[in-house]
Amino acid sequence: MSPDFMRHAIALALENVRSGSGGPFAALIVKEGRIIAEGANRVTRTNDPTAHAEVVAIREACRVLADFQLTGCDLYTTCEPCPMCLGAIYWARPARTFYAATAADAADAGFDDAFIHDELKIAPAVRRIPMTQLLREDSLVIFSAWRQQENKTPY
Amino acid sequence: MSPDFMRHAIALALENVRSGSGGPFAALIVKEGRIIAEGANRVTRTNDPTAHAEVVAIREACRVLADFQLTGCDLYTTCEPCPMCLGAIYWARPARTFYAATAADAADAGFDDAFIHDELKIAPAVRRIPMTQLLREDSLVIFSAWRQQENKTPY
Repeated sequence: MSPDFMRHAIALALENVRSGSGGPFAALIVKEGRIIAEGANRVTRTNDPTAHAEVVAIREACRVLADFQLTGCDLYTTCEPCPMCLGAIYWARPARTFYAATAADAADAGFDDAFIHDELKIAPAVRRIPMTQLLREDSLVIFSAWRQQENKTPY
Repeated sequence: MSPDFMRHAIALALENVRSGSGGPFAALIVKEGRIIAEGANRVTRTNDPTAHAEVVAIREACRVLADFQLTGCDLYTTCEPCPMCLGAIYWARPARTFYAATAADAADAGFDDAFIHDELKIAPAVRRIPMTQLLREDSLVIFSAWRQQENKTPY
């Protein structure tokens, strides 16, 4: 772990704001003491609501490594990850994550993800974006096909 | 809402498995009664751990609409969204979500996201992927810069 990596991420986030490229967030991925990927928030610039700094950095690092796992890597992010990014981190499986600002600091600046944590806790049907189940029985054939499929890469 | 859209998503997921393109999941986005984007799981094929069906479909729909919000759209997904995808849905803000299989059905097929729900509930420092805070004070200048920045697109 090195605070220099976080200082670099903070500089990236500042540059992202000052250049009008996106929100006040940046992240980077370190492997064996070297930065292999950087990411800054690109939601509005690229019309991609998933382009949070962590997701951008994870996707780039996986591209560089030609792997869908970030084994042995560290992720540095300027802010505590939102639930989407936390999920992305668990699927990418870096060894460690370092963050600077808290979710509360982000909320003070107008970026509040607390409602998503609340929504995760309640039943799908009563969420703000209602989630309705449909054709469950019909869908189970997909998982049967997966179990039977020999040409597959487990992940 | 139309079950035909879900039937189409189920067919996409089946095709994704049978062609060896990725995991047993698909999603699509409907606007004004028309499918504007489709997505299937592409984690292993594209070395992108964030390429879950919902994320792929959301990114494609936003590209088609040239917007970072899916206002008035419906999302159909063959399986209850994982925490990453649920977060992505909240950031994209479709009107409604429809899902077929449950998270438990996916877990039975080897795709278990329950541990991510558990991790979200506990303190960052004691998570399986430990999350350590670093240089918080240094990072707050990013949010000050955001507040002062005039050239910005709020989101």
